[in-house]
Amino acid sequence: MEMKITGTEIHEAQQRIRPFIRRTPVLTSTGHNEMCVAQLFFKCENFQKAGAFKIRGACNAVFALTDEEAERGVATHSSGNHAAALALAARWRGIRAHVVMPENAALVKKAAALCYGAEIVFCKPTLEAREEVLSRIVEGTGATFIPPYNDLRVMAGQGTAALEMVEEIPELDAIIAPVGGGGLISGTAIAVSSVSPSTAVIGAEPQNADDAYRSFQSGRIIPVENPNTLADGLRTSLGSLTFPVIRQHVKQIITVTEEDIVNAMRCIWERMKIIVEPSGAVPLGAVFSKAEEMSGKRIGLILSGGNVDLGHLPWVR
Amino acid sequence: MEMKITGTEIHEAQQRIRPFIRRTPVLTSTGHNEMCVAQLFFKCENFQKAGAFKIRGACNAVFALTDEEAERGVATHSSGNHAAALALAARWRGIRAHVVMPENAALVKKAAALCYGAEIVFCKPTLEAREEVLSRIVEGTGATFIPPYNDLRVMAGQGTAALEMVEEIPELDAIIAPVGGGGLISGTAIAVSSVSPSTAVIGAEPQNADDAYRSFQSGRIIPVENPNTLADGLRTSLGSLTFPVIRQHVKQIITVTEEDIVNAMRCIWERMKIIVEPSGAVPLGAVFSKAEEMSGKRIGLILSGGNVDLGHLPWVR
Repeated sequence: MEMKITGTEIHEAQQRIRPFIRRTPVLTSTGHNEMCVAQLFFKCENFQKAGAFKIRGACNAVFALTDEEAERGVATHSSGNHAAALALAARWRGIRAHVVMPENAALVKKAAALCYGAEIVFCKPTLEAREEVLSRIVEGTGATFIPPYNDLRVMAGQGTAALEMVEEIPELDAIIAPVGGGGLISGTAIAVSSVSPSTAVIGAEPQNADDAYRSFQSGRIIPVENPNTLADGLRTSLGSLTFPVIRQHVKQIITVTEEDIVNAMRCIWERMKIIVEPSGAVPLGAVFSKAEEMSGKRIGLILSGGNVDLGHLPWVR
Repeated sequence: MEMKITGTEIHEAQQRIRPFIRRTPVLTSTGHNEMCVAQLFFKCENFQKAGAFKIRGACNAVFALTDEEAERGVATHSSGNHAAALALAARWRGIRAHVVMPENAALVKKAAALCYGAEIVFCKPTLEAREEVLSRIVEGTGATFIPPYNDLRVMAGQGTAALEMVEEIPELDAIIAPVGGGGLISGTAIAVSSVSPSTAVIGAEPQNADDAYRSFQSGRIIPVENPNTLADGLRTSLGSLTFPVIRQHVKQIITVTEEDIVNAMRCIWERMKIIVEPSGAVPLGAVFSKAEEMSGKRIGLILSGGNVDLGHLPWVR
């Protein structure tokens, strides 16, 4: 594979993962449309297998391995949804998945990875610790490292959610996806620019983890360290493969306050009666924070996941 | 209208309310099927307009009024979902809705009724207080009383949820609906016995509000007083019109412990990523409590509503 992907790789990924993943519904909400004076379309990746879009990229990467590669297993580091997703994809292929996870990962995400059969090794919550433990495992087992986002097969897989959405909902003015490491937004950007070039791709990022915004403005990757945001899936910084795609194909990055993230999450729960995790509510938070710009538009929002620790909700003290 | 209803009235109700209500989806869950060793189909009335099936009955009753009757408005007493539903149906018809509500009704349900434009009068949380305040309103305004459940037009409207379900999902062995005052279960029983007579209709009721179970066993209405259950929609007792239908068409009433109600509710939230209120989780609680009987069956469950106070969840202390 070349060091870049196009619409072709997204379509190939769609074929490869179709037998395994769920084609998630696109929901609308009269209440939200009235409140935002816009037409909003919610791509419900919270209903996806393993509860988040991450299974798309993991499944594409795992099923793209040769039999010989696959036999030695896969490995990754992840604070959560990618871990569970890789474990599940590996189970579907009948191979082992080693997961390096920070000790402070959300309980519900640890449990999910275990439940899908991951072999978990815990580490300190620093990038250095993760990488050191991971390379020990890869050297010891010969497993293939499947990164959570900085990987072309993973990016191509993540782009299939937006591909489904533009196939189903014509003439969107914009699609907004959350931005963490950039896997989802870069796959989305490639899919959309290939299939529906008149649709703007917008990234939504917590103000307290605004590395993508600052990187986008300055033209070089500016990582964040230990960002303090409820949106636990978006604490990571952009990668060397995702950043160039974002620069080329993403129109705008909107930063969202913690208050707007919680408001958006609670609005989705209350009005749509569906469960979305804080990271998945960030795109609606972006609509709230740019109400005038969004007014009158047809906007697709990717609700990226629904894995919440129901024992600790941000509005319950 | 005669003092009984048949499949004809349910079909008429379906036509009458179709332009207003939502045809809710039927969802399945691999996780639940594996856990229960059965095929479960969830009719998602939590996604219904105003967040519960109650709009079906209210809408049918309001649009069955003559113009002259309608002009004088409608009135009811309700602890919650029926109040919001009647207010919304009245707004659709452009008429006034007076609602008598106990002071201790759930905050989220008070707010919903207000939001849909109800004129609320609060009263003490006793049947006597409600009825006295209500008759004063009816005498003063000439409004038509639309009871929350003991009314043929309301029962016929509630039956349309099950009608949609048996139209969509063939060969169900059983349909389980929650039982409070009996409006939903009686409409369900008439719809199902008319369209899919081989499907058993089962009622699910909190053990702590087991008036329907005891009435069903003894052959006469045995009301409960101030029952202590989380399932706030199911605290009412059967009515003179709903009980005979239940005796004739319902196969079984299953009582469910508070623990099973909370477990079922949390399972639905965690695995399906959708929000259901305690009352709506009681049918799944019934499957949990009769696991052997249910094993291997195709079972439809009516998730009756999704109006939860998100600030007070039963598993968060």
